[in-house]
Amino acid sequence: MAGNQKSRQASEQVRELGHAAVDWISRYIERAPSLPVLSPLDPRDVLASLPQHPPSDAEPFAAILRDLDEKILPGITHWQSPNYFAYFPANSSPPSVAGDLLSSGLGVQGMLWATSPACTELEIRMLDWLVEMLELPQHFLSSNSGGGVIQDSASSANLCAVLAGRERATNFDSNENGCDQGLTAYTSNQAHSSMEKAIKVAGIGRKNLRLIAVDENFRMKPEALAAAIREDKRAGGVPCFVGATVGTTSAMAIDPLEEIGAICGEHNIWLHVDAAMAGTAALCPELRYIHAGLDLADSYCFDCHKWMFTNFDCTCFYVRKRNELTEALTITPEYLRNAASSSGSVVDFRDWHVPLGRRFRALKLWCVIRSYGVDGLRAMVRHHVKLTQMFIEWLKSDARFEIVAPGSLNLVCFRLKGPDSATEALMQKLNASGRLFLSHTKLSGKFTLRLCVGQTYTEEEHVREAFELIQQHASELAMGAR
Amino acid sequence: MAGNQKSRQASEQVRELGHAAVDWISRYIERAPSLPVLSPLDPRDVLASLPQHPPSDAEPFAAILRDLDEKILPGITHWQSPNYFAYFPANSSPPSVAGDLLSSGLGVQGMLWATSPACTELEIRMLDWLVEMLELPQHFLSSNSGGGVIQDSASSANLCAVLAGRERATNFDSNENGCDQGLTAYTSNQAHSSMEKAIKVAGIGRKNLRLIAVDENFRMKPEALAAAIREDKRAGGVPCFVGATVGTTSAMAIDPLEEIGAICGEHNIWLHVDAAMAGTAALCPELRYIHAGLDLADSYCFDCHKWMFTNFDCTCFYVRKRNELTEALTITPEYLRNAASSSGSVVDFRDWHVPLGRRFRALKLWCVIRSYGVDGLRAMVRHHVKLTQMFIEWLKSDARFEIVAPGSLNLVCFRLKGPDSATEALMQKLNASGRLFLSHTKLSGKFTLRLCVGQTYTEEEHVREAFELIQQHASELAMGAR
Repeated sequence: MAGNQKSRQASEQVRELGHAAVDWISRYIERAPSLPVLSPLDPRDVLASLPQHPPSDAEPFAAILRDLDEKILPGITHWQSPNYFAYFPANSSPPSVAGDLLSSGLGVQGMLWATSPACTELEIRMLDWLVEMLELPQHFLSSNSGGGVIQDSASSANLCAVLAGRERATNFDSNENGCDQGLTAYTSNQAHSSMEKAIKVAGIGRKNLRLIAVDENFRMKPEALAAAIREDKRAGGVPCFVGATVGTTSAMAIDPLEEIGAICGEHNIWLHVDAAMAGTAALCPELRYIHAGLDLADSYCFDCHKWMFTNFDCTCFYVRKRNELTEALTITPEYLRNAASSSGSVVDFRDWHVPLGRRFRALKLWCVIRSYGVDGLRAMVRHHVKLTQMFIEWLKSDARFEIVAPGSLNLVCFRLKGPDSATEALMQKLNASGRLFLSHTKLSGKFTLRLCVGQTYTEEEHVREAFELIQQHASELAMGAR
Repeated sequence: MAGNQKSRQASEQVRELGHAAVDWISRYIERAPSLPVLSPLDPRDVLASLPQHPPSDAEPFAAILRDLDEKILPGITHWQSPNYFAYFPANSSPPSVAGDLLSSGLGVQGMLWATSPACTELEIRMLDWLVEMLELPQHFLSSNSGGGVIQDSASSANLCAVLAGRERATNFDSNENGCDQGLTAYTSNQAHSSMEKAIKVAGIGRKNLRLIAVDENFRMKPEALAAAIREDKRAGGVPCFVGATVGTTSAMAIDPLEEIGAICGEHNIWLHVDAAMAGTAALCPELRYIHAGLDLADSYCFDCHKWMFTNFDCTCFYVRKRNELTEALTITPEYLRNAASSSGSVVDFRDWHVPLGRRFRALKLWCVIRSYGVDGLRAMVRHHVKLTQMFIEWLKSDARFEIVAPGSLNLVCFRLKGPDSATEALMQKLNASGRLFLSHTKLSGKFTLRLCVGQTYTEEEHVREAFELIQQHASELAMGAR
């Protein structure tokens, strides 16, 4: 029997460092509400505080934790603060942190079924659970023609959807001969920038991506989509991909999937639905209207790492027919061949995305879903939606503000009536205060604030304080402007 | 002052769940040496043990940990076992696990500098440290024209290199108009499958990827590369990318970078060097010969999550000129605009890879480098190389075996003399024993075993036991065959 001295030492060290790190995080979560949400540091402040050269000798973990407090923490924008309302939430939770820790400790590579069967099979089951939890189309279940996989981000999932659509439209000729088929793709002018990035990466070319017009509520116009497809086909183009959005980044608009799906069906074009943040809302039956028509989609993604209390990265990507995805992405060199894969009886998730290596990310989902239960998760999402609607009511009571997009789910888009400069100044003043952090966009050409309620620890008081601070700073700006 | 009840509760819960998870991992690392390395489960065994439906109500964390032991652990192939010798190591370490935990706890999104300056700036400093630690070319430093970024995998880094090469060769026309330029790319027939995958993803097409022949030591033949490029150019092709390998997957062969670099320079073709596992060896001055000629490369990657004691994911990707990469990948929608980015004084790492979102991965590198010191890391790598060379000497003393590739660094390629079937049977018998795990490849058409020494806790005893087990099982197979 071999000595296992190093394993025993490591076991001790895991205990020592791990407990110290847990205590640090515990203190961090408690004090996060009182820290300035947006880091006040200037460029290179952190860099200047760090040694130019790596240490030759070992340093104690206590020294690292001290530097974490003194050098790193001031440079953190606190996504785990209950006063964080910018962009989208990156909400996390104690069970997720613990689940991710277990994944780090096990340290398995889930590239093949054989390299840790449990990594693949727990992921299959978690993605099937989510089909039930969100009442997604049944063909996304692993027991049917489709299935789901965890990817790092909706950007990557969108890319994989583009690739699958590209290959289906060209009968896998693009993989073989390259992209010179006059391929065209479609998304709304409100879609996330990752759609354009995916089109570029896939070699289809930005000029072959049609940014379809939206209606007054920022939803893709189906008739404009149909017209663009017809025009491209008349010109000899090969439409291969439509990217619809459930919950656009700027305005939380929900594209009309039923009409879009019918058009895609008519022309046999791959329909992908990106519900990065909004998808989580479907935990609540009363909010499942967001997915009306989703059964017409070929693929779908949403991010548990945005609004489902699971830390990054955890994008769930589903396809209607798994073979269409894997045939677009698989390559099997000799060194990855194994009996289980050759038998065809197992799933090798490496063929479901670009990277070969993959972390055991299903563990954190398992911990989150079990620790809260579906009812618990549902209650947390409902609470965020309720807080958002309260905020909207308060806004409506103050005549200085206008609401720029219909406030659905957990996002409010608003601005000060009048020129953009006032709203921009308001945002800068608010974010500089350190007491909250929100971000902006442009809607109908106007500078617009986005307040998104989704941080795990946000309570009614934080939203109320945010509103009062917004009112107060708007008043101060108006005074200063006189 | 808002109440922060949820943050306080979460702080308590982090402590409770976190400490329990740390204790679980500590026990796991200690018992890992005695667990069957390759999971003995059959397909669907784990699935069958998991509930079909998600729980409605919350469950205690203790129930999850119990299931982790009873249902998940039997389905784990133990990459953290000192008896793990397959594929490549996914070696980890206590400081890395603790660093990753801190990253989970902070839960920041590092997509932009502004969304957590420390996330970007610690990453810049760590990648600069690694230039010094590995004595990489000076132009990879952030203070010069280039810089480094952490990606999830070498597969993704290879893709980004292909994209940068594609754009440079077409003056950014592929991003705009798509890939119809007669682009061609080159790599050796021993390169990792992710090169072919990247070429397909990028829309260049497999038939436009030339798999260049190798010499008797499995190294790319520069004269064959030059001939292929000349031929393509004569035919009107546009060579855009050469992917060289330092440490091929099958045989740890090192392509001759100086000659390849000269050819790329002559034709102005992007040269990318993939040193996924082998790169770490350059921590040791006496092993830096592997990088001879690397100063001619446009980009380079190696994986700290393979052999540098840092858990997945942590690929370090460097470019000579950062603008060439970011111009190929950047898109800035209004909602991501901010003063810091617009000033041009900061780095936004979202423009250095495909995903928008990004985890604070530099924390674990910081913990690893400081906890061991450069000398400590160097000693660990040297130890693995020494153990590998010992194993080779033992093999040479047993006339039944032949060594199929020159054993360099930490990989041995060997087989039983005679037909493939004997070596294949030997592998199956060894892996089924649960006492070690190794994998295979084909070299010169022959079924070949790969034994890779790189797991953090592997000691001389484990390598010796592996050799004795191999001898014993070879003898038993020979007995059975009589």
